Amino acid sequence: MAKIEQLWAVLLTVILLPFSSTALTQDFCVADLIRGDTPAGYICRAPATVTSGDFSYHGLASPGTLIRPFNVSLASAFVGQFPAVNGLGVSATRIDVLPGGVVPLHTHPAGSELLFVLEGSMSAGFISAESNSVYIQTVNKGDLFVFPQGLLHFQYNVGNTTAVALAAYSSSNPGLQIVDYALFRNRLPTAVVNKVTFISEAEVTRLKALFAGSG
Amino acid sequence: MAKIEQLWAVLLTVILLPFSSTALTQDFCVADLIRGDTPAGYICRAPATVTSGDFSYHGLASPGTLIRPFNVSLASAFVGQFPAVNGLGVSATRIDVLPGGVVPLHTHPAGSELLFVLEGSMSAGFISAESNSVYIQTVNKGDLFVFPQGLLHFQYNVGNTTAVALAAYSSSNPGLQIVDYALFRNRLPTAVVNKVTFISEAEVTRLKALFAGSG
Amino acid sequence: MAKIEQLWAVLLTVILLPFSSTALTQDFCVADLIRGDTPAGYICRAPATVTSGDFSYHGLASPGTLIRPFNVSLASAFVGQFPAVNGLGVSATRIDVLPGGVVPLHTHPAGSELLFVLEGSMSAGFISAESNSVYIQTVNKGDLFVFPQGLLHFQYNVGNTTAVALAAYSSSNPGLQIVDYALFRNRLPTAVVNKVTFISEAEVTRLKALFAGSG
Amino acid sequence: MAKIEQLWAVLLTVILLPFSSTALTQDFCVADLIRGDTPAGYICRAPATVTSGDFSYHGLASPGTLIRPFNVSLASAFVGQFPAVNGLGVSATRIDVLPGGVVPLHTHPAGSELLFVLEGSMSAGFISAESNSVYIQTVNKGDLFVFPQGLLHFQYNVGNTTAVALAAYSSSNPGLQIVDYALFRNRLPTAVVNKVTFISEAEVTRLKALFAGSG
Amino acid sequence: MAKIEQLWAVLLTVILLPFSSTALTQDFCVADLIRGDTPAGYICRAPATVTSGDFSYHGLASPGTLIRPFNVSLASAFVGQFPAVNGLGVSATRIDVLPGGVVPLHTHPAGSELLFVLEGSMSAGFISAESNSVYIQTVNKGDLFVFPQGLLHFQYNVGNTTAVALAAYSSSNPGLQIVDYALFRNRLPTAVVNKVTFISEAEVTRLKALFAGSG
Amino acid sequence: MAKIEQLWAVLLTVILLPFSSTALTQDFCVADLIRGDTPAGYICRAPATVTSGDFSYHGLASPGTLIRPFNVSLASAFVGQFPAVNGLGVSATRIDVLPGGVVPLHTHPAGSELLFVLEGSMSAGFISAESNSVYIQTVNKGDLFVFPQGLLHFQYNVGNTTAVALAAYSSSNPGLQIVDYALFRNRLPTAVVNKVTFISEAEVTRLKALFAGSG
Repeated sequence: MAKIEQLWAVLLTVILLPFSSTALTQDFCVADLIRGDTPAGYICRAPATVTSGDFSYHGLASPGTLIRPFNVSLASAFVGQFPAVNGLGVSATRIDVLPGGVVPLHTHPAGSELLFVLEGSMSAGFISAESNSVYIQTVNKGDLFVFPQGLLHFQYNVGNTTAVALAAYSSSNPGLQIVDYALFRNRLPTAVVNKVTFISEAEVTRLKALFAGSG
Repeated sequence: MAKIEQLWAVLLTVILLPFSSTALTQDFCVADLIRGDTPAGYICRAPATVTSGDFSYHGLASPGTLIRPFNVSLASAFVGQFPAVNGLGVSATRIDVLPGGVVPLHTHPAGSELLFVLEGSMSAGFISAESNSVYIQTVNKGDLFVFPQGLLHFQYNVGNTTAVALAAYSSSNPGLQIVDYALFRNRLPTAVVNKVTFISEAEVTRLKALFAGSG
Repeated sequence: MAKIEQLWAVLLTVILLPFSSTALTQDFCVADLIRGDTPAGYICRAPATVTSGDFSYHGLASPGTLIRPFNVSLASAFVGQFPAVNGLGVSATRIDVLPGGVVPLHTHPAGSELLFVLEGSMSAGFISAESNSVYIQTVNKGDLFVFPQGLLHFQYNVGNTTAVALAAYSSSNPGLQIVDYALFRNRLPTAVVNKVTFISEAEVTRLKALFAGSG
Repeated sequence: MAKIEQLWAVLLTVILLPFSSTALTQDFCVADLIRGDTPAGYICRAPATVTSGDFSYHGLASPGTLIRPFNVSLASAFVGQFPAVNGLGVSATRIDVLPGGVVPLHTHPAGSELLFVLEGSMSAGFISAESNSVYIQTVNKGDLFVFPQGLLHFQYNVGNTTAVALAAYSSSNPGLQIVDYALFRNRLPTAVVNKVTFISEAEVTRLKALFAGSG
Repeated sequence: MAKIEQLWAVLLTVILLPFSSTALTQDFCVADLIRGDTPAGYICRAPATVTSGDFSYHGLASPGTLIRPFNVSLASAFVGQFPAVNGLGVSATRIDVLPGGVVPLHTHPAGSELLFVLEGSMSAGFISAESNSVYIQTVNKGDLFVFPQGLLHFQYNVGNTTAVALAAYSSSNPGLQIVDYALFRNRLPTAVVNKVTFISEAEVTRLKALFAGSG
Repeated sequence: MAKIEQLWAVLLTVILLPFSSTALTQDFCVADLIRGDTPAGYICRAPATVTSGDFSYHGLASPGTLIRPFNVSLASAFVGQFPAVNGLGVSATRIDVLPGGVVPLHTHPAGSELLFVLEGSMSAGFISAESNSVYIQTVNKGDLFVFPQGLLHFQYNVGNTTAVALAAYSSSNPGLQIVDYALFRNRLPTAVVNKVTFISEAEVTRLKALFAGSG
């Protein structure tokens, strides 16, 4: 579709959408990703445009793209991928960890995580903000592990086969902040990274190279 | 342990617990099921008594008890079974549906549900309160389906093998109200059930017999 | 007003509305039903367009339309009828129950209900999801009864005169899901209704006829 | 019951209560007013001790005690009077205003109010914090008026007969702060009241006498 | 910029904005004050248009405009002035009180306040809605005082130098309702003010003159 | 006080407390740190035991203890130090940063932060979880900077004098997770830290020595 036709399509949508949205409902609020976000979630699509297919999602049926050097694949069903979860306080990610692979140290700024192991074995741990104590367990097929909201946590494969897990979150958009990416995958100057982490400049330089950062 | 010793144990706990709880944290709030519930969840256990093992749960590794006549097994990790989810806004149930089996019409009064199919195929549907429209889909291994909070919904096996799913909820205690149990598994008089549902008294009587109700 | 003129009116509204909305307030957020809903409620009308009259509503001064076969009239002041309650966490319904009439088994997926009896006597009850116990009381003029959020409940007239009540809700849009309508007033196939409820197909067929369903 | 027996009763309750509370539920959370409050509401009573009668309340069937000089009677069903509303986000007050009477300027710090007129006519108004504009309406039998959370508001009888209304709130404990009581019914020194309101000291002295204050 | 050009700019914004907003984030939700408010805060600006500068605000570096007759200056960083706080549940006001000056009796309908004294000494107090008790303290440089949400409170300078404080709020838009303005700075008739407060009509007339009200 | 006397004091408190708490209020909920926490905050102290002094706090009037090697002092008024903020959604920290000092990379798992610079100049920055972009600004006396909830952020002194700031939070207990402490101040094995961060084992060993960790 050409640029100008897209513009007309959007203009017509903006003009005509209000007429269809007068059939009100709060049964559900499937996200209208185009009309924009609010602190409580996206503006809802007009209910009349929502069909059964909007409530199912097939994107977790196979692993996501492999991420180097972690040797992990992530396929997420957050509100951006699965708009039906908007406002419902729940979402999910499929996690495939190759032997030796790791979900590196990260947080979800806006949600707790409940991990269910589908295949293999992994070590799952989080660190208390209060005491710096580590809470860590080996979890096997069928086990659950829960990571409290906002705390630094990680998982890594402790077996010889690919470990697979489903992570469910207490938010339709929990976020994902990987510490390595936050520090080494951008233009934050090496001297600043050193200053705020005490990691040596040489090591920061090495890690910036590994994670495609600059500065 | 004898009754009297239990009493002493509880009394000592009530007396001594405050001293250990002065090491404060809000990293997590593992439920103290004995000290009681509040509208926002259970009172927290003293952090010093919490260990890594509290954050994992093994109860979903195998199916729950088979429930007749639904031919379904449910194993739940709500706050009552898995106290670590207290206050974290997430919990889970493992659902095993035999061929021909069904998770009958029900609601979760306090949570939305995100269903992930682990094995087999099922039909998953919910009904809009606003329009009475039915949103129904066949979901296969790896598919997600989301049920908005509080709406009547159901699943049934549409294959020849046991269908297995993990349900994640947006609450640590979403509740489960099965319509058949609410109407037919108690002493609500047959005449009242008939009056509030228009189901014939003969049919109510038949269903009360099936679901172990009286009156 | 002609279609094309409506289009122009909406287009102008979309263009000009932002200028008036720069006079900010969060005193109140009267719903702009046309601009659409979010998980936390409707987008607010520009405060400058709001007048005293928006905060009062006359629609409960007389009974709503009589609903057969329940012999009940419902007149609601949810956000769709009374936009001033948007974001305020409260709304109301007037309920008139003829002698012999009933508010059939239903839930409010998004709110608790506080019932105040204005005239006559009714039996009010709800069913626990946990225990399937029935909590039921006869309530007379001046009595209150409270139904916890999301639980199946009902009321029926136990007197010889019309019973009238005001129901207040803990949400500006609590929803209303009537079990008979959810099962029998749509195209959900009879076989599916039978499968998920165990009500006999013959009875389902009879009830679909009574409630204008098909399939 | 003697003081010492009460002490024993409470001690036994503290000891034995945990055993009964192991039958868990979050269907409802009837307040245990004795065990204490939290920011989200009272600790729940053990479900096994809750009966149908807990969910109804008769205290609004007749007017509350007449309050001078306002000539108004208030009978409330907040969580303190009606513990079943704990955690349910709703409560109510019956308001009887004699001819010439007034519900004086006040706020509900923790809730919005939906007023339903049962008898007579009153003037209902609130003041915007943003613009100081007054939103005021005469409301008659059957009318609703909504007061947004936290804003100063008032009602007064504009007829020749007692006006009666039911107020529903978006909280189980909305609070009630009457400006006259806050300023004149305590020991806040007259000079301080003058300083923070610019009402003359003579007038403050007169009003302190009227409202039983000192200082 | 001419009126017609502004119209075109807004129209283009409305048309083109959706394309930029498809780069989703919930890291933050900087308010788009033009697109409008919801009960949970403003619609977010497209993340691609947000820069570092949006997260800092310089408006509290000097006192706000002096307000007579209170002899106080207020400079606020609510969401209207500092759109980056949208959805973050926090905001601030700088308060400068001249010797003899006062922050008169007021409430914040939507937030609690934490006051930190930067210079000088002031008396800070609030009044309980439940008991009408006054909680009052003299606070000096470096002291904190907290005012619970929605309660009437005040501060006044008790020293010979300007007292300066920073107030932080538990909301991005806590509101500010000054009782003197609510009663005397609008067209609410003197007779009504007298009726709802019992302040004499003569005193109301005097105060309406002082605060620029009419009626 | 001897151990046994403390036990008696607590036992008596447990027994007698209920009698004083029957004077109900939800004006405020000053934390009873001894009786324990819930997901929504601490159980409230009996209102009758609360005095004006509970609402003020002097602990921020001077810097906290100096923390090496960061050269920063932190003095916090969270609910643990200042119980009156319980349930009020706000708290504060005083931050003193020596020349060359730093508030190292950290998150607040449960709150947004609004920083107000009292003295000197600092660089304040946070990193987007979505894009890994850095939002960084130099802020001077009188400036505000806001850090969205849960995101990694830092501040460091960019002047020649001590920089002082007041941080206000959107929670009474926002938490503080310092990445260096989470990784290097506990017994998490060096090999695990290396695995989940890709920081070399040699560097991890060096940092564990610096931050008093082991393993």
